[in-house]
Amino acid sequence: MSEQTRYLLGEKDIPKAWYNVQADLPSPLPPVIHPGTMQPIGPADLAPLFPMELIKQEVSQERYIEIPEPVRDVYRLWRPTPLIRARRLEEALGTPAHIYYKYEGVSPVGSHKPNTAVPQAFYNKQEGVRAMTTETGAGQWGSAMAMACNFYGLDLEVYMVKVSYQQKPYRRSMMEAFGANVTASPSEKTKAGRDVLAQDPKSPGSLGLAISEAVEVAATSGGTKKYGLGSVLNHVLLHQTVIGQECVKQFEMAGEYPDIMVGCIGGGSSFAGFIMPFVQEKLAGKKSTRFIAVEPTAAPSLTKGKYVYDFGDQAATIPLVKMYTLGHSFIPAPIHAGGLRYHGMAPIVCYLYDTKVIEAVAVQQNPVFEAAVTFARAEGILPAPEPAHAIKVAIDEALKCKQTGQKKVIAFNLCGHGYFDMAAYDDYFAKRLPDFEYPTAEIEKALAGLPQVPA
Amino acid sequence: MSEQTRYLLGEKDIPKAWYNVQADLPSPLPPVIHPGTMQPIGPADLAPLFPMELIKQEVSQERYIEIPEPVRDVYRLWRPTPLIRARRLEEALGTPAHIYYKYEGVSPVGSHKPNTAVPQAFYNKQEGVRAMTTETGAGQWGSAMAMACNFYGLDLEVYMVKVSYQQKPYRRSMMEAFGANVTASPSEKTKAGRDVLAQDPKSPGSLGLAISEAVEVAATSGGTKKYGLGSVLNHVLLHQTVIGQECVKQFEMAGEYPDIMVGCIGGGSSFAGFIMPFVQEKLAGKKSTRFIAVEPTAAPSLTKGKYVYDFGDQAATIPLVKMYTLGHSFIPAPIHAGGLRYHGMAPIVCYLYDTKVIEAVAVQQNPVFEAAVTFARAEGILPAPEPAHAIKVAIDEALKCKQTGQKKVIAFNLCGHGYFDMAAYDDYFAKRLPDFEYPTAEIEKALAGLPQVPA
Repeated sequence: MSEQTRYLLGEKDIPKAWYNVQADLPSPLPPVIHPGTMQPIGPADLAPLFPMELIKQEVSQERYIEIPEPVRDVYRLWRPTPLIRARRLEEALGTPAHIYYKYEGVSPVGSHKPNTAVPQAFYNKQEGVRAMTTETGAGQWGSAMAMACNFYGLDLEVYMVKVSYQQKPYRRSMMEAFGANVTASPSEKTKAGRDVLAQDPKSPGSLGLAISEAVEVAATSGGTKKYGLGSVLNHVLLHQTVIGQECVKQFEMAGEYPDIMVGCIGGGSSFAGFIMPFVQEKLAGKKSTRFIAVEPTAAPSLTKGKYVYDFGDQAATIPLVKMYTLGHSFIPAPIHAGGLRYHGMAPIVCYLYDTKVIEAVAVQQNPVFEAAVTFARAEGILPAPEPAHAIKVAIDEALKCKQTGQKKVIAFNLCGHGYFDMAAYDDYFAKRLPDFEYPTAEIEKALAGLPQVPA
Repeated sequence: MSEQTRYLLGEKDIPKAWYNVQADLPSPLPPVIHPGTMQPIGPADLAPLFPMELIKQEVSQERYIEIPEPVRDVYRLWRPTPLIRARRLEEALGTPAHIYYKYEGVSPVGSHKPNTAVPQAFYNKQEGVRAMTTETGAGQWGSAMAMACNFYGLDLEVYMVKVSYQQKPYRRSMMEAFGANVTASPSEKTKAGRDVLAQDPKSPGSLGLAISEAVEVAATSGGTKKYGLGSVLNHVLLHQTVIGQECVKQFEMAGEYPDIMVGCIGGGSSFAGFIMPFVQEKLAGKKSTRFIAVEPTAAPSLTKGKYVYDFGDQAATIPLVKMYTLGHSFIPAPIHAGGLRYHGMAPIVCYLYDTKVIEAVAVQQNPVFEAAVTFARAEGILPAPEPAHAIKVAIDEALKCKQTGQKKVIAFNLCGHGYFDMAAYDDYFAKRLPDFEYPTAEIEKALAGLPQVPA
């Protein structure tokens, strides 16, 4: 036991502020556009959905935003999370690279999602909100919101994509255990849901549609309910920077600095939260870390999408943002990594991709599960299908080091465990998992229908 | 954030030796009896099943037994585990008591079981064994053995109680992900299994029968396969003392000492591992901690069993030990806490109960799940049904403190999370969970059939 395996921090090391990369971007982010006027929106336009403190964070140019003490008080139920040196994986691969992973699966609901669910619930509570709505795909985000709303005594309605509602009853059970009310989407409760059901009573739903339902319920509640989103928005990414800030300290403990940082991207928040404090160093010209975003070929927003204005939801009701998108009507193939099945991408991640600060790669699901099993057999932890995308690329990079003899430091974000995803592993072992090529024709079709936004 | 919530130790604090309570018992444990001769057995009698190092540990009177460095090297994938002050639970209960829990659910397979699976696989590997067999009920132990055998390159056959094999396919998936071969028990692979199937082709199986099958395969393998047991035996309890030893240091950090320590008991190993270093202090007259073992009314070995010699397996093929037993033919009702559905109890735990060092209480499953949900909503973690038994009694004791105003320090062992047990929570919320009274008639019947062992 010569070298350290787990780099652990104490409660005093839980960050006291979130890091806001907007302060360090060379130019401002493109404005958010009102779907009615096609003009940039103001804070008042978002007020029906979000509490003012989150709207302020969404547009803030302050470099650091203080984390309220009651939020840190909840964070310490599982934070700081460990940074782990994957010594056994290195050995299994025979690579000279040093591989590290940040393990967010230690949170009570098993992923990074509570990092933002908790402050979102907190600010809503603080501004007198009594009830919230949200959507969830595979259930990670819904579970996190259920736990957070439970802590602050808020009611929660979750619109869960119907196919997941049926296939992942245990994620639903977890939300219900925390007292949330879970509805399969599309539902009869909203116009957006009824419209879809009228056309297709057997619709399996989609994340974009579940967002439309949750937003509609909040927007038409007369101010009694607000909405929470689990990724994409600036304030969500902001909250996730606790991940990367802890990593900075942990790499100091390890006496190393990452040459390559890898994360999976669906909406982009776990990846952003992991890399942002390191991006800061790169933007300042101090470091030259490579940041690799990994997406599924079935939903290749960065590698095959267009950098244009689009809606974040399927019903095209919420404000437009400039992002790499596959078109809001695009419905990704049913890969097991439900958290990565999204047509768009966080504007901040898109900005960094467009300016070549980060790079992106798309992978297919069988090689991803092969990497997941290699990792699990070496390190013991069964990863969720989403971060297994990052593992695949981290292993690829480690094997390149084996070829070249380079001793690079590779870090990836293990943003959640796979205990709720064992059916996916079953399918993989039974060779029932299809791989998906780039859905080029469907993407072109969905992109053709996008609105024109004046420059 | 004034008071500490999580008490974390570093890798250097992983214990260097296991604590063997046999060195401190006022009198020796009753001998183990050969099922053929009805005379005390010697080490050679156990050699077909276990490697010699584990047999030595089984009977050792040494106070400390060194943990091999390669075992500590695997332990550090998740150890030391946190001791957590349940401040939010205290607040929810309005109790002046200080409640702490040791959280073993952070292990890769989600329970305390790898603490012994890893050294068992290690010693087998060291003595040239290439393959192992074991049984599993709900799947916690099988998962741990699958992970451990995978680490040391050993083949593993798991006999999984058929009803669990069907109801908990995801535990099976996890074992298979680690490369284990899982067979539903009763099976056609063994005489024990075939005998049962001949009488009842639809037999749902039982833990005692799965043990018989796994033991038979090892015993008839001509020395090529050895067997691993997940509880009951002295060496298993020994390995689990890493839990309690870490707790000693963590309570020093907290500046407190437990007045009451609570754990659930099935075979008794997690409870024993948690309390033994504190039992040492009590046996030495230095402390007077109350130790409360919590069992289900459906399998009430300590509270309703008899302290006599009995077989550990249903087919009555393995050596007899003196224990509190319900009779090896007794089959507990299908409560969700599968890990507690065992007719016997670890001899060491029985000795301590007989000599009044520890006490015991039996509880029904609905109040247990009520306590589990109270805990989850306060602390975020959904406990497995087994440790929820301990939570129930810890909460009861904390509420007594609320009545009396006493500021007791109450600690319980949260030996695993409930991510694989969500169906049980569903049943609880749907009010589908039956409670079970003491099965007095069945116990009397099973006890009547026990063999007579000469005094």
